[in-house]
Order: sequence, then C-alpha cells, then structure tokens
Amino acid sequence: MQADELSSLLESELSGLAWSTQPNDLVQFGQDWTRFHQSNASVVFFPNDVEEVQKIIQVANQCDCVVIPSGGRTGYSAGAVATKGEWIISMVRFNQITEFNPIDQTVRVGAGVITEQLQHFATEQGLFYPVDFASSGSSHIAGNIATNAGGIRVLRYGLTRDYVLGLTVVTGAGEILKLNNGLVKNASGLDFRHLFIGSEGILGVVVEAEIKLIKTPPNQAVMLLALSSLEAVMSVFALARKSLLLSSFEFFSDRSLHRVMQHRGFENPFEALHPFYVLLEFDDDEEAAMQVFESGMEAGWVTDGIIAQSIDQAQQLWQYREGISESIAHFTPYKNDISVKISRVPEFMQQLEDVLAAEYPDFETIWFGHIGDGNLHLNILKPENMETTEFKQQCEKVNEHVYGLIATFEGSISAEHGVGLIKKPFLPYSKSAEEIKLMQAVKQVFDPKGVLNRGKVVDCE
Amino acid sequence: MQADELSSLLESELSGLAWSTQPNDLVQFGQDWTRFHQSNASVVFFPNDVEEVQKIIQVANQCDCVVIPSGGRTGYSAGAVATKGEWIISMVRFNQITEFNPIDQTVRVGAGVITEQLQHFATEQGLFYPVDFASSGSSHIAGNIATNAGGIRVLRYGLTRDYVLGLTVVTGAGEILKLNNGLVKNASGLDFRHLFIGSEGILGVVVEAEIKLIKTPPNQAVMLLALSSLEAVMSVFALARKSLLLSSFEFFSDRSLHRVMQHRGFENPFEALHPFYVLLEFDDDEEAAMQVFESGMEAGWVTDGIIAQSIDQAQQLWQYREGISESIAHFTPYKNDISVKISRVPEFMQQLEDVLAAEYPDFETIWFGHIGDGNLHLNILKPENMETTEFKQQCEKVNEHVYGLIATFEGSISAEHGVGLIKKPFLPYSKSAEEIKLMQAVKQVFDPKGVLNRGKVVDCE
Repeated sequence: MQADELSSLLESELSGLAWSTQPNDLVQFGQDWTRFHQSNASVVFFPNDVEEVQKIIQVANQCDCVVIPSGGRTGYSAGAVATKGEWIISMVRFNQITEFNPIDQTVRVGAGVITEQLQHFATEQGLFYPVDFASSGSSHIAGNIATNAGGIRVLRYGLTRDYVLGLTVVTGAGEILKLNNGLVKNASGLDFRHLFIGSEGILGVVVEAEIKLIKTPPNQAVMLLALSSLEAVMSVFALARKSLLLSSFEFFSDRSLHRVMQHRGFENPFEALHPFYVLLEFDDDEEAAMQVFESGMEAGWVTDGIIAQSIDQAQQLWQYREGISESIAHFTPYKNDISVKISRVPEFMQQLEDVLAAEYPDFETIWFGHIGDGNLHLNILKPENMETTEFKQQCEKVNEHVYGLIATFEGSISAEHGVGLIKKPFLPYSKSAEEIKLMQAVKQVFDPKGVLNRGKVVDCE
Repeated sequence: MQADELSSLLESELSGLAWSTQPNDLVQFGQDWTRFHQSNASVVFFPNDVEEVQKIIQVANQCDCVVIPSGGRTGYSAGAVATKGEWIISMVRFNQITEFNPIDQTVRVGAGVITEQLQHFATEQGLFYPVDFASSGSSHIAGNIATNAGGIRVLRYGLTRDYVLGLTVVTGAGEILKLNNGLVKNASGLDFRHLFIGSEGILGVVVEAEIKLIKTPPNQAVMLLALSSLEAVMSVFALARKSLLLSSFEFFSDRSLHRVMQHRGFENPFEALHPFYVLLEFDDDEEAAMQVFESGMEAGWVTDGIIAQSIDQAQQLWQYREGISESIAHFTPYKNDISVKISRVPEFMQQLEDVLAAEYPDFETIWFGHIGDGNLHLNILKPENMETTEFKQQCEKVNEHVYGLIATFEGSISAEHGVGLIKKPFLPYSKSAEEIKLMQAVKQVFDPKGVLNRGKVVDCE
C-alpha cells in the first residue's frame, strides 16, 4: 500500500483512531528483542477498546493489508516484527487490571498489562501469580498468552496456559469471540481458548483475559550449587526432587556465569571456578537442603554450594541466572530455545555438546536453561567482526545439526519462544508435514484472508 | 449402506479386522449411560493397532459411512451413541499401559485403559493420578480425554487436560498425528493436542496418550457436614478453603441422600434430617477441621458433622455422595450438568431453585455437585407412569428456562459431560453463533467428509 493510500484510509475509514507514523515509533514498535531484521512498519495503531481493534482488522481485510499484534516486544523469534510495511496494533493502552474477584481468585486484565504488574497486583491481594521469567518487567500478558510463556517455575506451577480462564479475542475475520467466560469446568464443544493460547497472533488478537491466581506458597529458599560435570546436573535434579519441594531448577554453564560477572561487575560467588551450576528454589527446609548438598558432595556431583541466608542474598543468587540474557544481548546472540523430555536431557546434552564442538568451533556458546522441565537455552554469540547476516546464515547451517538431533530425540525446536519468523524454516523438525498443513488450514478458518501476522509460524495456504 | 454392501466390505477392504454384527454387541456398543435413544449400530470393530483404526476410517471415507469412536460408554450426553446405523470403533483392545518413565513421571496408555487401572498403576509406582469420578471403574482414558473429564478433585488438581502430555490420534481424514510427544514445554506452532482434548470424537480418534502422574498427596481426611440452607453452602466453602487444603468440596441435597440410603440400605449418617450436605476431603489436619466445624456451627450454617476416624469410615462417607448417580439410574434421569463461576453459585442456585419450583412442580429433582469448582448436577427423575419420549420432551421444555438462566450467568450448559447428541440443541445458550460456525469449519479441516461422529456436538457444514 502506498503512503498516500494509507493517509487517505487514516482520514476516512480509520479516522478517530490513535496512530503514529513517526519513524521512531515505526522502528520501536516494529521490532522485538531479536536483531536479525530491519524493522519496517507502515503505521502503529494504539486502539483503546475491542471495537477499535475490530475496526482495524476489518479495514485490513478490505484492503488486503497485514496487521501485527504487538505486546511488550520482548520476543526472541521475531513473532511480532514488521519486515514488509505491515500495520502494527500496539496493545499498550489495554494496560488495566479491571476486575478482581476474591472468591473466584481471578483477575480480568487488558492485553497490555505487564507481567510484573499482574504479579504485584496478586501479591497485594495476598495471592500469587507464579508465571515468571527474565522479561517479566516488560512483557505483556497477551504476549505471554500468544506464546504460552513458561519461564523459571514451570516445574511446579505450569505454563501461562494453566492460568487462562477466559479470553476475548478478535479473529482475523474481525469477529469478537469471548472464550470460556472464566469458568473452571466447561465441556461445551471445542475449546478455542486453548487453540488461541500459543498461536502467536496468527488466528486473532487477544484483547482481554481472565487469569487465575493461586495461594501464596510458603517462604522460598534459594541454593546455588557448583557441579563437577554435565552428567551431575540430572543426578542432582533427581536427588533434589526427592527431598525438596522445588519451584525452580535452573542450569547454567561457566561461560554464562562469566558473562554475568563481567556485565554486572559481580564477584565470583565461589572461591574456585566450576564447569556447571544449578540454582534451586524450594519451600524453605534448610535441613533437607543441607542433606541434598552433602549427599551431592559425597557422590562427587556437587563441588561447592551456597544457601541464601536472606532475601537479599536469594535475589543476588538469582541474578547470576537471570542476568545471563541481558549480559549477552549486545553480542546479537542467536538463540536456540529447545526442549526434550526430562529423562532424555543428559543423553541429549552430551550429544549436543559434541555437535557444538564440531560445528561451532569458532563461536562462543552460552547455555543455560530450565532444566527441570527439559528446556535448554543455547545462545551463540556473534564474533565482533562478523556481519549479522553472515552470522545468521552460519548459525542456520548449524541448526540443521542441532535441530536434526532434536528431531531424533522427538524434542521441540521452540520450547517457549514460539516460532515467529526465525524458527519457521525449522518447524518441520518438530512437526510433521500433515500437522503443518492442518495449521495452515486452521489459520484459514479464523483468518480467511491471512491479514493477521502473515508469514509468521506457517505460510498461508 | 445395505447389509450386503457392508458384508462385502468386511470381506474385501476390511478383511482381517476383528468385528461383530451380533445383535447383543450392536446394542451394547451402540449406547452409553443415557437411555433416550434406540441403539442402532451396523457393526462394531475391535481394532488392535493404530493402522487398523486408520484403515477403518479410510474405508469409511471412501463409502461415506459414519464412524463412532467408543470407549467405556459411560457418557451422559449420548456422545458415543449410534442411532443411524453407524459403525462403532471400540477401543477395548487398546487396554495396555505400555510404558512408565519414573524420571518424567509419565505413563503411556492405550485409549482403552480404564481410569481406575491407571489410578492403581500410579499407586503401585508410588505416584498419584488425581482425576477421579463415579464412573472411574468403567470409563476409558480416551473417553476422559474426549470430554476433558473432571470429577471430584478438580478444585485442587484440575481436569484431564492438565495431565495429557502427548496424544496419538487418527483424524477424520485418516491421518495419524503424534501431538506433543510428552514434552513439558513446546511452543512450536498451534497445539492441536489441546484442540483434541474435549472434542468428543468429532475431529479424530484418540489411540494413545502420554499421561503425567504426580506426587502422592499426604493422608486425606474426610468430613461430612449437614447444612441449614442453600446459602450456607458457599459460606462454608469460603470458611473451609481458608484453613484446609481442600481436594474436594462436594454438595448434595436431602433428596439425594435419601435416594442413596434407600438404594444401598444405608442408615442416615446423622440423627436428624437436614436440607443440604457438603462432603470435604482435605490434607489431614483434625484441629483445623474441628475449627471449621465449630465456626460453621457458631455462624448457624452447620447443623451437624462427622469427621471420618478411619479409612473405612471415609470411604463410607464418600458413598453418600458417589452413590447418588447409581441410586437414581433406574428413574431414567434427565441430567443437567451445568456450571457457573464459583462466586456466582449462591445467586445462581437461588434463582435455579425458583425455576425448578415453578417449572418442575410434578418432577422429583435431585441435585448435587462439585460445587468447589462451580459445577452442579441437576437430575430430573422420570415419573414411573410417563413414557421416556414424553418425559424427555417435557424436560427439554424446561431446559429453555434452566439454560436461559445459565446464559444470563455466562455459565456452561455442559460442565463435564460434553455435548454429544443430547446437549447439541442447547449449545447456543453457551456458545455464540460465530463460535459454533467456527467449530463446524474446524471440524471440516480435520474431517472433511464428516465421517467421524457425524451429527454430534455440531452439524457438519
């Protein structure tokens, strides 16, 4: 669409809406946390209500324009990135928690409510919203829903999916659907709520959600353990799971720790260097924790350890893990967010290490992950003197090996980041040709003209 | 299809398969626990593996025959009932638990594994499968998946959906899909696993599932309380939820208790009669339980109570609740399985009582339910001298009032029984016209010729 055609639309069918075509806005709202595409949006809309969202989609259908739903733009798979002059629908104005019901223990939230905002609100009500991850200070609830975000406590509390009791969406055809109305039990036909969760904006725009809160767990303790080897990671997990009520079991490598220390100016938490680390969060039980530590030492798996003695120290220990992504951001990391069954993690990691040594000899690889649920984050850092395009191409070559391995293990090429643009070419490593065709067909049901996030996840039919 | 055409098919394309056209089998496998339809099936197949299921569906597609997936036939909505000479695929031979992984804490089960069989298997491994209901001795896992079965512990442990980590299905087009492979985290495109859960056999036949088990909970205590009024029910729920870790909070009326006592020859558990009862199961804490009881007495909500002093007594108390369905089965009950938000239960029940008094003056109504998750079972008993057809028609007239009320409360016309044939006319009370159209379109994607469970849940497009 030419600029003058757009201008005329904005003054006719779309008049009265808030929008921007300021270059700064177009760049900012046209990108996420990846840096592999040139942001190229035509206009950013800032709708105020569901009808305005519907209006934009209806007009997009009329003029065959493509619309991208946009949340906190913290994605790692370019799922909300504009590369072809698309229209952006930013949901920033849907930033209100509009209802709290203490009996149902539910909140009604606008699409643009920040994850942390919901967490704080829950705490103020004496309740708990357990879904949490490094980007919780910026990510929007609707973005979490669109990718079924997981994070650091999935082990105990599950994924975003498990907390969504109701959704209001506008489909690609411009229809408003109210899905499930906040009910706990509802077996009245196909449950489209669960189809929209994790659909990355290719079926509809999430406008509002009803979210379940839960009881506040008991005091949490945090322990950081240094490990002798990769095999020790899962041995310690099995050991810890037996005697502690774990909320998190996070893994990171020596290089990950090194990057955080360098970036934040932290001291080494231990006296010596160790090849691997795990961070455990659990219902406070110092005696049981000491036993895990001691048994781990005796078995030769654990080489050192710290149990946080205060909330401050616990937060400090968490920073060694949560600071990793930020500490490597300026290296334009190529991110693999992969998963296998928990039981297959040790064998998978061993084989993955061999692949990395053989295929990435010149790249620095940083790995860490939510290993208690089978999810590894493998980051490849761009050498300073290499062009981004060249780097991406090289990484994608290696993907064939990494993803080939994942296919052998029946794992996922995207555990929690989604598919977006970046993982789309690799979807066949996790999904059969039949399943991908069915995804295209289902997309067409909800978005017959393919106006929503066209080109992301799967091609239109 | 004529009988001779079928005979010739069974000897050509379908030769080698196990099947029966014995009148007894046709009746038995063509019905569920409802009694409002004449069972009318043409043939019952007993496939042994996924390829045989696929073969049957492929042939059904060629000759435009309709296939009904059949489990334990414990349904209450005629979702697996044959009324038009359909073919039945009985999954009884898929009755094996084929794999247990202690690290993943998962089991791989055939479609025809009985719920109780899985519960016992979990116990033998020192783990727990929490989904439970009155029909667990007969219902198949795949049937539970097809209706997203809930039952008596949803309050704490959620629904069948929450335990399905992987599914193998054969679609209506005859394609085999392996969905999610048992992964905890998997954000690689649309998650069709969750679309199949609760789809009542209109998209595909569930052949195998990977099911998550959980840690065994601490010892459970059981308390039966007699209540003074309907309003007291939710007051006691709020009170109990504060101080007890509830697994169940079940409600039943005096008439329900009366029916169980009569049917099983039980004594009245209390000295006097009371209008309403609630049964609580919770992590054993006698002191807290006594406090709930005493506070409830002081407030005038609770009029009497029993705390089970042994496992035997706990099981006995449970029978007052779990025996209700069986005790009224010979009255051909018309079942309403409805839900609203927990917070709206008191107001809803009050208004429902008024509707019942006005519209069902001549019928005995029995109500009970999993009230801690907003789910009520409302059973209308057929007067002995009334014809079944006449009775069904009269009930359906009253449905307009009951379901109209549910629509006002944004509730569900089917909380856990599914839609099947019986609730299909009433789906518009819970789902918008747009959503029903989308269901039809999605059915067509997975089952283009409508060979699977045609006429159930929604009409084909």
